[in-house]
Amino acid sequence: MEQGSTIAAISTPPGQGAIAVIRLSGEKALEICDKIFRPADNGPLLANRPANTIHFGRIYEKKALIDEVLVSIFRTPHSYTGEDVAEISCHGSVYIQHKILKLLLDNGAVLARPGEFTQRAFLNGKMDLTQAEAVADIVASESAAFHRVAIQQMRGGFSEEIKKLRGRLLDFISLVELELDFSEEDVQFADRSELKSLLDAISRMLEALTGSFAFGNALKKGIPVVIAGKPNVGKSTLLNALLKDERALVSEIPGTTRDSIEDVIHIDGISFRFTDTAGLRETSDAVEVMGIKRTMEKIRQAKIILLMVEATDTAGHINHLIEGLLVRPEIAEKSIILLLNKTDLLPGDRRLFEKRDFPPLRGKDHMIRISAKTNTGLDKLGSLLISMVTRESPGEGDVVITNLRHYEALRNAHEAVIRASRGLENQLPGDLLAMDIREVLHYLGEITGEITTDEILGNIFKNFCIGK
Amino acid sequence: MEQGSTIAAISTPPGQGAIAVIRLSGEKALEICDKIFRPADNGPLLANRPANTIHFGRIYEKKALIDEVLVSIFRTPHSYTGEDVAEISCHGSVYIQHKILKLLLDNGAVLARPGEFTQRAFLNGKMDLTQAEAVADIVASESAAFHRVAIQQMRGGFSEEIKKLRGRLLDFISLVELELDFSEEDVQFADRSELKSLLDAISRMLEALTGSFAFGNALKKGIPVVIAGKPNVGKSTLLNALLKDERALVSEIPGTTRDSIEDVIHIDGISFRFTDTAGLRETSDAVEVMGIKRTMEKIRQAKIILLMVEATDTAGHINHLIEGLLVRPEIAEKSIILLLNKTDLLPGDRRLFEKRDFPPLRGKDHMIRISAKTNTGLDKLGSLLISMVTRESPGEGDVVITNLRHYEALRNAHEAVIRASRGLENQLPGDLLAMDIREVLHYLGEITGEITTDEILGNIFKNFCIGK
Repeated sequence: MEQGSTIAAISTPPGQGAIAVIRLSGEKALEICDKIFRPADNGPLLANRPANTIHFGRIYEKKALIDEVLVSIFRTPHSYTGEDVAEISCHGSVYIQHKILKLLLDNGAVLARPGEFTQRAFLNGKMDLTQAEAVADIVASESAAFHRVAIQQMRGGFSEEIKKLRGRLLDFISLVELELDFSEEDVQFADRSELKSLLDAISRMLEALTGSFAFGNALKKGIPVVIAGKPNVGKSTLLNALLKDERALVSEIPGTTRDSIEDVIHIDGISFRFTDTAGLRETSDAVEVMGIKRTMEKIRQAKIILLMVEATDTAGHINHLIEGLLVRPEIAEKSIILLLNKTDLLPGDRRLFEKRDFPPLRGKDHMIRISAKTNTGLDKLGSLLISMVTRESPGEGDVVITNLRHYEALRNAHEAVIRASRGLENQLPGDLLAMDIREVLHYLGEITGEITTDEILGNIFKNFCIGK
Repeated sequence: MEQGSTIAAISTPPGQGAIAVIRLSGEKALEICDKIFRPADNGPLLANRPANTIHFGRIYEKKALIDEVLVSIFRTPHSYTGEDVAEISCHGSVYIQHKILKLLLDNGAVLARPGEFTQRAFLNGKMDLTQAEAVADIVASESAAFHRVAIQQMRGGFSEEIKKLRGRLLDFISLVELELDFSEEDVQFADRSELKSLLDAISRMLEALTGSFAFGNALKKGIPVVIAGKPNVGKSTLLNALLKDERALVSEIPGTTRDSIEDVIHIDGISFRFTDTAGLRETSDAVEVMGIKRTMEKIRQAKIILLMVEATDTAGHINHLIEGLLVRPEIAEKSIILLLNKTDLLPGDRRLFEKRDFPPLRGKDHMIRISAKTNTGLDKLGSLLISMVTRESPGEGDVVITNLRHYEALRNAHEAVIRASRGLENQLPGDLLAMDIREVLHYLGEITGEITTDEILGNIFKNFCIGK
């Protein structure tokens, strides 16, 4: 970071809108604004106006009026970045946004790098590193569940707890290291049993946090669901029906994307990533259907497998298909939902299949009768998916790790904790013990940002959008 | 408009960004905000805080934290709409934007219709109708020239002058109509020669304004330029070279569109709309090239025609091509720029063509040697295009009409003024004279919005974006 520079960027989404906001942060934020802004009240300069106030006026390029704007001003340390901040709210023409940004740059501001506002907030102690990372997650959040996790992280989440335990561990290590200075005298300043119970507490926390990552990561990217089944069994119809439901809900939100291979569908605020195996070569034989490498890869990654068959088929054939799936070792720990589709085509007098008609299904598997075409049974499928996910999800207030960087640091810290604990048990000499504990401190400090490098910061903030 | 309702909309461009702004306007704007917002300072309700201030706090849905936001508050009449206004600046996640909007709607706000904020500003007397229309133009402005015109219109532009003249005309018509009450007595309250000179003044203004429309409209949509020439003469290379230049300039601006048939290229802040006739059937014979109906239609609409030939061709053949173009009556009033392309392929010892080598070219036509491939001569072409456009453009401060609705009302008013003037000369009876003047008043009033109907307003504001 260029110290002392004043950065500027367009902070609202790219493109044309009713209004756009251009943000400035740094020592000269107000001074630079004053060079191009004339307040409508002909009053004092922005630099001489109180914090947290809004001012109407005009932006000029020399004598040419560029726009009528509102400028909001904030003062250090009570701003997002902790520095002086000005936010210019202008008409949302792309031309005007660009023009005002250029005027600011011409008058001494420098273009902000991605995430630089948040990086400054971190460097100025407005938030720790996990909170800064949460800001990017919040901006990217598309589902209620992931949003909730990101918001929790922004508010401190697990980093408070980590900081507390790390602080206690720091006290211990200074005692252990003090012992080293008196090594000839064989004294123990650090109470070994207290240290052991602290390490155990840290270990438990780290275990819970790393354990939550599989779920957190799925939450972030969408719970992977694979739909398997013969061609024309109705897989696309089901996806379209689920998507249509969704479209109706989010039709006001632009930018909803549809991927031809994967469809992300939000059900009750949780994202599910559906993979249709329709694009893959398929035959009528289930074993061969499943035999294709790419399908197996998808199934390996999936948390839930939907096996779609026709309700009008015979129980014998359906059981044969189920067995074909279950023969695969990858399926062992996954749940199957058997979807009996096309119930609308069943003759009125036909007995409806029950789960017990399919003995190969295991206790954790499910069966649902649906008609993708007539939208029958889709609510039931939705509720089932949600219940399968939330069963393994942590409770309301529990912390979930969604960030790979945190996961890796936590796992490294956990390994070091285990080594330190074992060393303690084996009455390892103080200097070796200290090394393991130092390692724990290092990894925990990396998470919160108490220990950081330009490289770590660079990696984190490069993925932010500009203006954040 | 639902009287008394409080409207809400996302006002920043659609999609994900660092921040987004949700705007509320109406009697209950602050009250509704207070239902979902908790200020971080635990201070008073927003409804009890001073105008033009910003407040940090949190948005909740019941107990769930949705986001940390800034709320700016404005109070009637000192706001954009003239009503109480709140602007919520939140993290720019699509999920959060949508969620906060939904919370506002759940708590008593109604979704704003396109342009409804600006419509309210008009109805509350914050701006006249041409100023309101200018807001949409400003938001849509993509070039410096059109932006300048729109800004001028927003600041009052020609509507002030119209209002003044209309006011004077109103005084006259009441006198004329008073005469009608005394019709048996044959009195004249309205000084006919003063009325005549007022009508003349109005007529001159209307003539200047309607006359500026052709240029204003071209400015708004881009000055139409047609590139004609044989296949492979380098038309696409030229367009790509011009666009590339432009791309470099605007690469930070997302959403720059490229149309396969028409390319809008900004040169020195003026938009040019280039039509390549490449997609049309072409032969090596210029007359036939030009003979195709669609090409002729494009040429009819164009202000400038680029005829591209190979600099390596013979003067005789090039003159033949020029003559083939000029034979068409549509070309008579248009300027041609003869582009001698592929100068990079000329042997070093070859004499360079001068304009006098092409006798069919007229005084207003031009000749430029370029190489689209090596980017040679493109600056010259740019300057020439600019000089050709600005020659016929009005001066810096002159008013330009860009809006078809204004143009039509001005033209109708002008016709009525001419009728009234003629009637005055022919000493038409007062009641007939009054009718013509009433018509002038009507059309002038329509422009500024002093006379308006729901239909006119509906037509104007339906083209705004939501949130403006």
